[in-house]
Amino acid sequence: MKAAVAYEIKAPMRVEEVTLDAPQEHEVLVRIVAAGTCHSDLHFINGDIPVQMPVVVGHEGAGIVEKVGPGVTTLKPGDHVVLMVAFSCGKCSYCAEGRPTYCVENLPIQIMGTLPGGGIRLHKGDQKLHHLFGLACFAEYAVVHERSAVRVREDAPLDVLCLLGCGTSTGIGAVLNVAGVKPGESIVIYGCGGVGLSAVMAAKLAGAGMIIAVDTLAKKLEMAKELGADYVVNASQENPQQKALALTGGGVHYAVSCVSNADAIMQAYGSLRMGGKCVVVGLPPVGINLNIAPYELLLGKAITGTTQGDIRPSVDVPRYVDLFMGGKLPIDKLITKSCSLDEINEAYEELVKGEVVRTVVRF
Amino acid sequence: MKAAVAYEIKAPMRVEEVTLDAPQEHEVLVRIVAAGTCHSDLHFINGDIPVQMPVVVGHEGAGIVEKVGPGVTTLKPGDHVVLMVAFSCGKCSYCAEGRPTYCVENLPIQIMGTLPGGGIRLHKGDQKLHHLFGLACFAEYAVVHERSAVRVREDAPLDVLCLLGCGTSTGIGAVLNVAGVKPGESIVIYGCGGVGLSAVMAAKLAGAGMIIAVDTLAKKLEMAKELGADYVVNASQENPQQKALALTGGGVHYAVSCVSNADAIMQAYGSLRMGGKCVVVGLPPVGINLNIAPYELLLGKAITGTTQGDIRPSVDVPRYVDLFMGGKLPIDKLITKSCSLDEINEAYEELVKGEVVRTVVRF
Repeated sequence: MKAAVAYEIKAPMRVEEVTLDAPQEHEVLVRIVAAGTCHSDLHFINGDIPVQMPVVVGHEGAGIVEKVGPGVTTLKPGDHVVLMVAFSCGKCSYCAEGRPTYCVENLPIQIMGTLPGGGIRLHKGDQKLHHLFGLACFAEYAVVHERSAVRVREDAPLDVLCLLGCGTSTGIGAVLNVAGVKPGESIVIYGCGGVGLSAVMAAKLAGAGMIIAVDTLAKKLEMAKELGADYVVNASQENPQQKALALTGGGVHYAVSCVSNADAIMQAYGSLRMGGKCVVVGLPPVGINLNIAPYELLLGKAITGTTQGDIRPSVDVPRYVDLFMGGKLPIDKLITKSCSLDEINEAYEELVKGEVVRTVVRF
Repeated sequence: MKAAVAYEIKAPMRVEEVTLDAPQEHEVLVRIVAAGTCHSDLHFINGDIPVQMPVVVGHEGAGIVEKVGPGVTTLKPGDHVVLMVAFSCGKCSYCAEGRPTYCVENLPIQIMGTLPGGGIRLHKGDQKLHHLFGLACFAEYAVVHERSAVRVREDAPLDVLCLLGCGTSTGIGAVLNVAGVKPGESIVIYGCGGVGLSAVMAAKLAGAGMIIAVDTLAKKLEMAKELGADYVVNASQENPQQKALALTGGGVHYAVSCVSNADAIMQAYGSLRMGGKCVVVGLPPVGINLNIAPYELLLGKAITGTTQGDIRPSVDVPRYVDLFMGGKLPIDKLITKSCSLDEINEAYEELVKGEVVRTVVRF
């Protein structure tokens, strides 16, 4: 089968024929129908965050189960599934407490680039290829752990649903689960890429009273307005923190930062009213630091972050799908382009330039 | 009447005769029965935090209403009251949302050193004396706004209840309201002064599964054990962060830092498990900064602070009094000494040296 393989950092991926083993115990073989391009892949490709190479990236995939391995009880051939970036074992204390994105088995999988349990099913000749996030969706097929796949209704388009594997559910969850926006409250969202625009949609869904969206690109701010932002701020022209404080007369209830730099995160934090909460999402480069004056904390301000919006995949993903199908969460609007697997490198170049929000690779 | 007046920073207070005007609109005259010595006073006396001088400090007072001014409806002569460090107007959005310690009128009062509304009732001859936190409890009498005084049951000893005006309710509220400890969860408390030991008591009350207390003084750690700590760590002998991680096998659910330096706060934060919450209490000196790696935030860790434990004085203080009277919250144990107003400077010297937790000035 065909896959896009990253052999070294900062180099283009090679789209080539590779071998995929049959699914083992508790694993399933999924025919990938579509996969989203998410900025996080780039952090690994560019070496900002270490990963075992060679690796097949792509972690926003959706497809149809073709075959199940021994012991699989939750899925059967023909099931439509969304593949989840955060693995959860279902057994550790985090899973038991309803916080599966903090599963103790998740981080090791990210670092090792294997399936849960340490297995590798991808090969190029004699060479092992790693599975980013235990997934590896930029390929015609993927073998994943059954708990990495969430079954979804079959009338929903998989080339939209794939976004729920990472960025879109992160943005939605950051607003609904981590911030916990209540009707009438105010929120500012820094960064209007796929995650930020998903946060805007979720804030609208939650009935936020004032939604302020910040970016440096006019095109993305236009999309933010369409998706529910009441005010947009072009940070290359105005100070977004001052603007947020002025618009709200003293600060927002919640700030969500979807921008991977310290200045933006600090501006998001600085946009809060007393008692407000700042939620940091997205993978920041290792080595950057936030400088927070404890004095500000005494004003009851909180800063936190989240892995994948604190979602409970088996509960929240089908819920988001229903909301999308009901017209209440138009996540299809995030897809500004589609391409073939052969065009994967160009797709990421356009993503970096901000020319697209999400390109979906169709197989 | 007699009061302790601070005329300049870093100088001893002068205990001398001063004049107190009659209570004006919405003000009451309170005969102070007892007042606690709280570290925060020292930040003002030492100039760490600016305050208008000369000033009468003392902000943990309790007493009996002697006289009420025009328009007072909530108190009458003879009522027993605890005076509250954080003023709340009852009208702003923070008060309306049940977060009165963030009242918009509170901070200006702190900065101005006046009663709410800007009034000053204290004089030495022609010279105005400021009221710290709108209170000025190191005096035989105080004129305060009626909303600065919470009525309490008359069978409870005022020389214990005075602690609820600031430090003790801050420690209790940090655990119960801000952290929100649930039975069986784990917590580490950095600093075993009056605030920290109150936090230990509250954690025990809330049924915490593991309570770890950290200090550098053996005597205070002994008190922590008596009041409910399951483990104590002497930070001059062991690394408290490593110890907390080891004892819990991966980190605590909650950390409360009652120590005013950045290193201790960062160790508290570093003691958390994924998804844990660090609560910073106490007034840190202006100018210190915390360095937080956003990467850690992605593990769902939160850091926040609080003004006076996010308490709702009129609800929580009578509740804490009932808990104390019922033997469930032994706040009297925090009082390790009592003195007269004439001994106030010595009392603060002993507090700095860590020789006492709380000295109560009895009038």
